[in-house]
Amino acid sequence: MKVTVPKRSLADTLAHVERVVPSRSSNPGLSLLRIDLRPGSIELSGSNMDIDIRARLGADVDGTSSHAVIAHVFGMVVRSLPAEDVELEFTDNELRIASGSYTTKLQLVAAASAPIVSFPDSFEGIIDASALHSALTAAKYAAAVADFQAVFRGVKLEFGEDRLRAVATDGFRLAYYDVSAQSGLRSDVIVPARSIEELIRILGDGVVKLSLSEGQLSVEHGSYALNLKLMDGSFPDYERVIPKTFPVSITLGAARLAEAVSRVSLLADKTANNRIDLFIKDGIATITAEGNFGRSQEELQVTQEGSDSEIALAYNAKYLVDALGPVTSDVKLQFSGSGSAPSMVRDLGNDSYLAMVVPLRTN
Amino acid sequence: MKVTVPKRSLADTLAHVERVVPSRSSNPGLSLLRIDLRPGSIELSGSNMDIDIRARLGADVDGTSSHAVIAHVFGMVVRSLPAEDVELEFTDNELRIASGSYTTKLQLVAAASAPIVSFPDSFEGIIDASALHSALTAAKYAAAVADFQAVFRGVKLEFGEDRLRAVATDGFRLAYYDVSAQSGLRSDVIVPARSIEELIRILGDGVVKLSLSEGQLSVEHGSYALNLKLMDGSFPDYERVIPKTFPVSITLGAARLAEAVSRVSLLADKTANNRIDLFIKDGIATITAEGNFGRSQEELQVTQEGSDSEIALAYNAKYLVDALGPVTSDVKLQFSGSGSAPSMVRDLGNDSYLAMVVPLRTN
Repeated sequence: MKVTVPKRSLADTLAHVERVVPSRSSNPGLSLLRIDLRPGSIELSGSNMDIDIRARLGADVDGTSSHAVIAHVFGMVVRSLPAEDVELEFTDNELRIASGSYTTKLQLVAAASAPIVSFPDSFEGIIDASALHSALTAAKYAAAVADFQAVFRGVKLEFGEDRLRAVATDGFRLAYYDVSAQSGLRSDVIVPARSIEELIRILGDGVVKLSLSEGQLSVEHGSYALNLKLMDGSFPDYERVIPKTFPVSITLGAARLAEAVSRVSLLADKTANNRIDLFIKDGIATITAEGNFGRSQEELQVTQEGSDSEIALAYNAKYLVDALGPVTSDVKLQFSGSGSAPSMVRDLGNDSYLAMVVPLRTN
Repeated sequence: MKVTVPKRSLADTLAHVERVVPSRSSNPGLSLLRIDLRPGSIELSGSNMDIDIRARLGADVDGTSSHAVIAHVFGMVVRSLPAEDVELEFTDNELRIASGSYTTKLQLVAAASAPIVSFPDSFEGIIDASALHSALTAAKYAAAVADFQAVFRGVKLEFGEDRLRAVATDGFRLAYYDVSAQSGLRSDVIVPARSIEELIRILGDGVVKLSLSEGQLSVEHGSYALNLKLMDGSFPDYERVIPKTFPVSITLGAARLAEAVSRVSLLADKTANNRIDLFIKDGIATITAEGNFGRSQEELQVTQEGSDSEIALAYNAKYLVDALGPVTSDVKLQFSGSGSAPSMVRDLGNDSYLAMVVPLRTN
């Protein structure tokens, strides 16, 4: 069977699918891309066990057949093709790819060797893609990357009646982001942060269809469908640890603060949590760091509430900079006390976002 | 002593010096940057034993003193500074750096701990910087990167009466580039390819001053001075191995050929020298490769001389692509025979450049 598709759209689609399909795996079937030819379309699908992905590409197919090929080899060849169109010709055991003066023959594998992935036909929920994008992007940095209890490596999605909250924490910091959404789902689920990243990448304009079934959240958006495997375990009761009273708080430009913290932290001791110290008094925030190579300091004018007080705290510089990332304009930093009493990061231009950072113990 | 300089020019200058000075070394003195304050200028210098570098920066200095600081720490801090100007204040054991609201104090080390580097005051030779840039860039890729006899990791500079030739070979390929130059030097020297790369980076407009002394080539250009340590050993007699007669040769666009070879080689067997096969007959060049994942092929129309003959050769794809890199327009590929008889690569738009590639043995 022979089919012609534009190189650009095939290459772009494959790039998304290839990010999920492992290029090396102890289970060789997992590195396969399944190709289903259907009247009018080509479907490309694969899985890494945590995520199943399927992409659909319109094409002049007039028949039905299924094949599998090593995903990263197919992707590498398609990206290098010289002409605007690609001709794909499938035989029982070979895929012939021709473009301009170039041709190649890749070995095909029986479609049955590739992972079997299936996606729901109907979806009970819907959400705006750009709202979902904002929520996921703003929360996911706070998830742990490794060496933590599994649930800390996930992002919790709280689907409420008229709201979706995405929340993540690694125990030392927390971030959540609320969007108004009548998603049609009423459930709390935890999705691995790595899967959330892949979901973010396919989100464009329009709506996302959602479906929850045993152990997975299924998503359809544009030409992509994903099954995201859910995590077991119970997410920490984070509302309980968010402080309510703040003797001191300051307001200033978020970018200015993030740059100053990054700069000062260059001299921080990398072996001591990349510690920077923050001292606030009389409307001046002084950031300092000290390490093997010397000492650095920056002073920023801030609007201080609780101005008769002073406060001295220490942070992991990276945690503070990460927490400031989603803040679009001015940030309000609220200090609940000294020692390791948590500090809150609020975006004065957008109350959807809230972050918490636990200061370092300093003695 | 206190001095103010523009951040931009200090950061740019440091970037060059830092590329030479190792950030880690078993000899801690080598990771130091020496800073010499002189009336009207700051001099920054360092060494990695193969290359000494000195950069001069105009500045409002009104005294003389010498210091040393860990180069990569100083560079990292300077790159992050917030304001356009930097104030540097030197005391006996601290360098205070202030820019905008930021200040830092770095530990200084006695200047005597840094490598002692000295540069000639007078130069017996001169060469145009852009001509030198062309020659070095076009030849250096053919030098070996590792696992070869030392002399193959160098670039030979042949300073003749009215010509400079830069030539490199790793035994499997060769490249040279000639420029007209009355350099004032009459000598052949071999410079490590890694040092040639650093020299290329500082070359801009204008002239380069040259001086040869015991074991080193010294270069002064703009605000930079370099001493490049020379390599011992005798360079192979490469002229002897360049074939003189070519039963077949072809002409075509160099970029078109390089792209086709790169594309076809994606399916080549990486464990078998990344082999591609070239078959020429009746004005058609057919490039093929075969590996574990399949087979690929591309056909190109070429202008063929020796058109009653056909020729079949195999190459390491990377060697062919590298050799085509400096060719600006059409390339003439000349084949001296079958088997591993060398092939020549000539730039039809520029006869300064010549490259040789030894084909792979195919049996």
